[in-house]
Amino acid sequence: MRQMTILGVGLLGGSIALAVRAAIPDFKVVGFGHRPETLEKARQIGAIDRAETDPAAAVAGSDLVVLCTPVGTFEEILRKIAPALSPGCLVTDVGSTKRSVVKLAESILKKGTEFIGSHPIAGSEKRGVEFARTDLFRHGLCVITPTANTPPPAIDRARTLWKLLQMRVVELSPEEHDRVLADVSHLPHLLAAALVAMQEDEALDFCGQGFLDATRIAGGDAGLWRDILLDNADNLRAGLLRFEEEIRRVMVMLDAKEEEPLRRWLAEAAERRGKILDRKLRTQRD
Amino acid sequence: MRQMTILGVGLLGGSIALAVRAAIPDFKVVGFGHRPETLEKARQIGAIDRAETDPAAAVAGSDLVVLCTPVGTFEEILRKIAPALSPGCLVTDVGSTKRSVVKLAESILKKGTEFIGSHPIAGSEKRGVEFARTDLFRHGLCVITPTANTPPPAIDRARTLWKLLQMRVVELSPEEHDRVLADVSHLPHLLAAALVAMQEDEALDFCGQGFLDATRIAGGDAGLWRDILLDNADNLRAGLLRFEEEIRRVMVMLDAKEEEPLRRWLAEAAERRGKILDRKLRTQRD
Repeated sequence: MRQMTILGVGLLGGSIALAVRAAIPDFKVVGFGHRPETLEKARQIGAIDRAETDPAAAVAGSDLVVLCTPVGTFEEILRKIAPALSPGCLVTDVGSTKRSVVKLAESILKKGTEFIGSHPIAGSEKRGVEFARTDLFRHGLCVITPTANTPPPAIDRARTLWKLLQMRVVELSPEEHDRVLADVSHLPHLLAAALVAMQEDEALDFCGQGFLDATRIAGGDAGLWRDILLDNADNLRAGLLRFEEEIRRVMVMLDAKEEEPLRRWLAEAAERRGKILDRKLRTQRD
Repeated sequence: MRQMTILGVGLLGGSIALAVRAAIPDFKVVGFGHRPETLEKARQIGAIDRAETDPAAAVAGSDLVVLCTPVGTFEEILRKIAPALSPGCLVTDVGSTKRSVVKLAESILKKGTEFIGSHPIAGSEKRGVEFARTDLFRHGLCVITPTANTPPPAIDRARTLWKLLQMRVVELSPEEHDRVLADVSHLPHLLAAALVAMQEDEALDFCGQGFLDATRIAGGDAGLWRDILLDNADNLRAGLLRFEEEIRRVMVMLDAKEEEPLRRWLAEAAERRGKILDRKLRTQRD
């Protein structure tokens, strides 16, 4: 592989470009974006060699294309790039939902193009290529979502890409991915935003660090998250039902003043979170 | 004031002791606790001069007494110290709920003792005097909760204490305090614990930094939080109803695929959280 195209040079796209170029210095990177200032910034920090404001022109001659724009823009971009892709080109993306993305790509892209969905679990509530970092993905987990239509070489090539960025790679079906991510990412976002929204103005002065941490994810980009929540609404609803069931259980304990079951429930949650944190720290150390 | 007693020498009690001694080096501090190892640790880090395992012996001769044990232990401790308090002694606490604490103290403590409820909003999910820091409270907000029964000098003396720790001091009634804190602290804790509890085991590997931040508060001490949730159950229930109403509004938008209202709702939450954060950072700079 000698040339890669990043469609959407923001925090994620910029960080992928920086990391790939750090690992393979003579790799050429073409960046596509709407705003010339963003593209210029991407060039200045060394993320891209060449900038294009037309997606078809951006993918021409590339062996690897990564879609890093919001999920809501995928259909239009896929239609524009489909005729311009080089034969054998690997196309993947970094979208937070996978069923619709994979379906779109498999229906729009021509035979001979190797598509596989990817979701590198990384990022932050910050936006923009100015926050791009070579190590944004390091020690993170990347889910790739092959289907019966995925050409086997695409799986290996995607694994190679994400491992180059020092990520662990896991395979899930698009359906499994969307179900799991609804619970661990999309539902938490919805809850955090609702927690901010329900506050009375007089209460805002009393928000401590705990509140700010609990709602950090609600600081994310509204357009991006609207697309994610709409795209995964069915799984979100299923997760919300289980969440509400859990809340109901606790409120029964509170109403009945069941001290020991309540303490045990809180202790189990604290312990479980501790295990998630330990596992994460262990992965980063190994 | 020459001598202070800290009842319960953990993270909060130890940090108060360290901060007061840093500001007034010849101030004597007596620490009460059940575990000799904890008291010995508190002495080693210079938080206390003398350790007592009997609360009445610990308060004898002190001008200032701060209850730093879990709210559930207050009644027993107040009964034990009431006869041993010096006339004119200021008694306060650091409990996270205020109605029950203030009511207990006002009914148990004798005339001549000056009680006022305090809630310094600080701390972390860490526990134990080994994490005590001189600056734990710096730039934080302390709510004091005077009532019609509070002797006016107690308000001034409590303000002096918390300002010595470099906190901003705000007065609320115990009722107002418990209502506001239910929304900004106790409800977020409940939601975070439920979010951890509702996860399926297979999903835990996919929890990213966003999930860990959103649930950090759920790592707090289960016994302490059981007491808080039970003590403030009525306000918690009222806050939960408003939270669920907010969630229902969003789910209607999702069901109807109302793209723009959903984006606006998310953008408003992000903006509102940004304002809370800005205000906090500005306070810390001033």
